[in-house]
Amino acid sequence: MSSAPELRRDPICGRCVLVAPARAARPVALAGHAPRHRTNGERHPCPFCPGQEHQTPDELFALREPGTAPNGPGWSLRAVPNMYPAVRAGSAAHGSAEVLIECPEHFDSPTDLPAERLADVFRAYRERMLALAADARLEHVAVFKNVGAEAGASLGHSHSQLIATTFVPDLIRAELAGADAHFATTGRCAFCDLIARELESGERLIARTERFVAVAAFAPRFAYELWVLPVAHAPRYEAITDPEARELADLVRRVLVALDVSQACPAYNWFVHTAPLRAGAPPHYHWHLEVLPRTSRPAGLEWGFGCHITTARPETAAVELRAALTPE
Amino acid sequence: MSSAPELRRDPICGRCVLVAPARAARPVALAGHAPRHRTNGERHPCPFCPGQEHQTPDELFALREPGTAPNGPGWSLRAVPNMYPAVRAGSAAHGSAEVLIECPEHFDSPTDLPAERLADVFRAYRERMLALAADARLEHVAVFKNVGAEAGASLGHSHSQLIATTFVPDLIRAELAGADAHFATTGRCAFCDLIARELESGERLIARTERFVAVAAFAPRFAYELWVLPVAHAPRYEAITDPEARELADLVRRVLVALDVSQACPAYNWFVHTAPLRAGAPPHYHWHLEVLPRTSRPAGLEWGFGCHITTARPETAAVELRAALTPE
Repeated sequence: MSSAPELRRDPICGRCVLVAPARAARPVALAGHAPRHRTNGERHPCPFCPGQEHQTPDELFALREPGTAPNGPGWSLRAVPNMYPAVRAGSAAHGSAEVLIECPEHFDSPTDLPAERLADVFRAYRERMLALAADARLEHVAVFKNVGAEAGASLGHSHSQLIATTFVPDLIRAELAGADAHFATTGRCAFCDLIARELESGERLIARTERFVAVAAFAPRFAYELWVLPVAHAPRYEAITDPEARELADLVRRVLVALDVSQACPAYNWFVHTAPLRAGAPPHYHWHLEVLPRTSRPAGLEWGFGCHITTARPETAAVELRAALTPE
Repeated sequence: MSSAPELRRDPICGRCVLVAPARAARPVALAGHAPRHRTNGERHPCPFCPGQEHQTPDELFALREPGTAPNGPGWSLRAVPNMYPAVRAGSAAHGSAEVLIECPEHFDSPTDLPAERLADVFRAYRERMLALAADARLEHVAVFKNVGAEAGASLGHSHSQLIATTFVPDLIRAELAGADAHFATTGRCAFCDLIARELESGERLIARTERFVAVAAFAPRFAYELWVLPVAHAPRYEAITDPEARELADLVRRVLVALDVSQACPAYNWFVHTAPLRAGAPPHYHWHLEVLPRTSRPAGLEWGFGCHITTARPETAAVELRAALTPE
């Protein structure tokens, strides 16, 4: 295994990454990345905790104990409008911005949730996407999660965000364009081909279940970037079934625990990439979840030129993540 | 002036930015951005300080006192190969990675340099670009600078980097494509048109000299992003003259001091966007320098979907930066 730098391109969108393992040895006089700040102890006042429902707008969706009233305690998960929205109904940037509060407990990691409750989070994504699709002006729903301040979280209490827009975001358009070109050439889905390659070689495989697979990204923007994909072709996240959501939660939870063990609890984002709302069921697109750990600080080459540098080969990352998996 | 969110697209490459001033008021329980860590006091051992030349490879270029020998003291600026390169001659990622040490003093801000010495930095960019162009395999030279750990700097001592590659990076290709489309439609350079608009409206203008202009970016990825452009059409940075380099240094220094005053010394990157090495003098491309202050922490919408959120309107940023300028 060489330590010489290597140029890789993302197999879907063509994004450029320089993999340079030797850079891991460089001296760092200024602060590097640190484990994310845990906030479990800093409970009050948290606007997402039970009893603080008056600090958020009226809920759009909730899982509640029978007999409890909206906008009071008794919930296990609730979605509310974002009070500080990046898009807003009727504005020049029409859209909807929502916060999905994942638990009444002041957990700051999604892996603090048992798998069945994490499955509820993935089911709630589906419910909110389906509800937002009713607004015919909206073209796309971005679903993402920021874990830790380094990953852009401003509140620690575990939550996801949904941002529905009248346009299809740039990175989704880039994936669609790449997948479309692959389909035009081969007649096949680029993601299905990627999964087949990864299952065959196994060198970037982290874990799989019957219906899902977790792989280290071939061209990672950050070291230990990983993707979770449904094995069977599935363009739209919203079509996920309840049992699939549970299986997804089991797998995501397992690989995130391994990431925390292996990389000392880095901050990270995850995001769902799914077909645009009005795209039907495109034969060339395949929903997936990407996890982007903040294992480095992007600098001028990344921000100025769109070219990422990573110090860990994904094949090495996969070995380490597999070793850190808890037994099933 | 409304606080409703607004969707903007970069006039050259079309990149999407949501400008949402009301988000500035959101509660932040986790750490937000802080002033960059200053390292002026942490002098030893710094591999970029005089007397430590043995810690770096042999110099490629230097400005020296007459009679001093290479790779020893007596220099005011020196370029050396990067010991931890992201690209390397003859590897699968062929290229050249260099570090330009801007001063013998352990300054950690380029504004600590007097303007004439900062002009030497801009002249050295030109000299190294011209030298790297001699390798016919190379297609592009990325020149950038990271100031502060938050912006990806690993050493505090003021330095720039050059990374020459066999490919044209994604963001340069996106700018070229946007500029090409504009030229095909209008017969004019998109950057020349942008400069004319900015000079006419004045609302994003920060400062100008005879031959350069500094403007707040119309669609900033980070609040207070600013661009410095030559007023006259100029595709290639390497054609800069010595007097132009001095004028550029005066203007860049002045707006960076204003940025430090206005935003309490944020970390930032700057990068030079210039035409690819083999592109000749394209009528539709126009070199410029972009300054990207780390005034926020990009999160899931940025990394997952390529859509930036910023809380300051660039028109407001321009007012603040103009107010923070020192008199000429």
